Amino acid sequence: MNLAKLIDKDLDKFLPSAKTEPRILHEAMRYGVFPGGKRIRPIILIEAAIACGGNYREAAAAGCAVEFVHAYSLIHDDLPSMDDDDYRRGRPSCHKKFGEANAILAGDALLTLAFDLLANGYAPWIGIKMIKELSAATGSEGMVGGQALDIAGNKNSDKVNRLKTAKLFEASAALGALSARAGKKNIATLRKYGLNLGMAFQAIDDILDGENIHLRKDAGISIDKAKDALAVLGRPRAERLKKIADTILTRSK
Amino acid sequence: MNLAKLIDKDLDKFLPSAKTEPRILHEAMRYGVFPGGKRIRPIILIEAAIACGGNYREAAAAGCAVEFVHAYSLIHDDLPSMDDDDYRRGRPSCHKKFGEANAILAGDALLTLAFDLLANGYAPWIGIKMIKELSAATGSEGMVGGQALDIAGNKNSDKVNRLKTAKLFEASAALGALSARAGKKNIATLRKYGLNLGMAFQAIDDILDGENIHLRKDAGISIDKAKDALAVLGRPRAERLKKIADTILTRSK
Repeated sequence: MNLAKLIDKDLDKFLPSAKTEPRILHEAMRYGVFPGGKRIRPIILIEAAIACGGNYREAAAAGCAVEFVHAYSLIHDDLPSMDDDDYRRGRPSCHKKFGEANAILAGDALLTLAFDLLANGYAPWIGIKMIKELSAATGSEGMVGGQALDIAGNKNSDKVNRLKTAKLFEASAALGALSARAGKKNIATLRKYGLNLGMAFQAIDDILDGENIHLRKDAGISIDKAKDALAVLGRPRAERLKKIADTILTRSK
Repeated sequence: MNLAKLIDKDLDKFLPSAKTEPRILHEAMRYGVFPGGKRIRPIILIEAAIACGGNYREAAAAGCAVEFVHAYSLIHDDLPSMDDDDYRRGRPSCHKKFGEANAILAGDALLTLAFDLLANGYAPWIGIKMIKELSAATGSEGMVGGQALDIAGNKNSDKVNRLKTAKLFEASAALGALSARAGKKNIATLRKYGLNLGMAFQAIDDILDGENIHLRKDAGISIDKAKDALAVLGRPRAERLKKIADTILTRSK
């Protein structure tokens, strides 16, 4: 089974069943998570864990937590008062399918579930570090702050891209390292890798949206930085993380 | 200084300044928190801590966390797609003042900040227990689930009141006990106290909204249960918690 499919099985396991009350809320949460995209954030997290000597099993709960945060952000970003997107991955967006109120609540519940997974899935000293990392990356001076700047009209600035996208990539790589009980040096390495990967990811996203074709050079530079950061890990360990970096550059919608 | 004013000082301390970017987001978060109501949840939390041998200082971060969760829930509940309230405590509600998008994001950021405070304010083994307690009480099978049932038309049922309101009261009392390093028996006692207090609080809320005058008897029963639960704590310790219970019954809007 490939990694994305393994992750899907765990996402399904950690989500309450669609038969659990309130059904419409759990259906809306599941609709926001399945079928997903490429599961790039948990994949980065898991490969970072493996590169630090960890394994899939230990990384899985944290991988699902960052994917739940990503899903919540998409549900809220799609709302009429935000980006007003009626479609997501070729289907009606969550609020078109379940109504705005349920979409807002589904996002709220996915965010809450993410912290729940980290608190329940790890030894306290690791779980607390992960929760600090994730809350800092996604709060008012992280992802949510980036979305606020974005809707205020600061589109495509380096700062918006860092807050809105790259910080969650950075946190994903750091959480993977933490799940493997990595030391400070390796965590710092993975954090740098993740942040640069996220910057490249957002630049490519903007190119795919037709917003600025000149961003390809920026994306290339970020990917080089991400790969350079991995040097200290040693070659065989870094190989799969380098491959992920390359796929970011060549990805399509 | 009275307790509510002490709490206000700490809420102010833990919130990013309104001068921190993105300013509009931080202004909206602060608008949702100040001026608050009676700060009943953090007061319960702090008095529960003191009744278990703890103190204000140790309980403060958790008290602010539950108040941030409460503020986020009000901001999201007031949105047009939810309860559609244009006013809150005599002022325009958050979305009327800052727009819907910023109100949604302010709620998201307050929820994230709540978990951040618990992760940063306590020894890991306590912080993790608190985060488990808060996420379970406020997620899809807690407060958010209650709001989903409420907007689906299950108004005023016992289940809705328990999920939407009482679980956060229960968690507040339990978090206070945890901050005081209370044992399992005292935590269970405080949890029972908080849950019953919350049920009474919601019943009185419905009476004040003119929804069902017959609920006063239910509220009285819940308050009796809450006070009975305190018996095991011993009289002097339980005195202030009993007083809080009595004020719930006689409270006005």
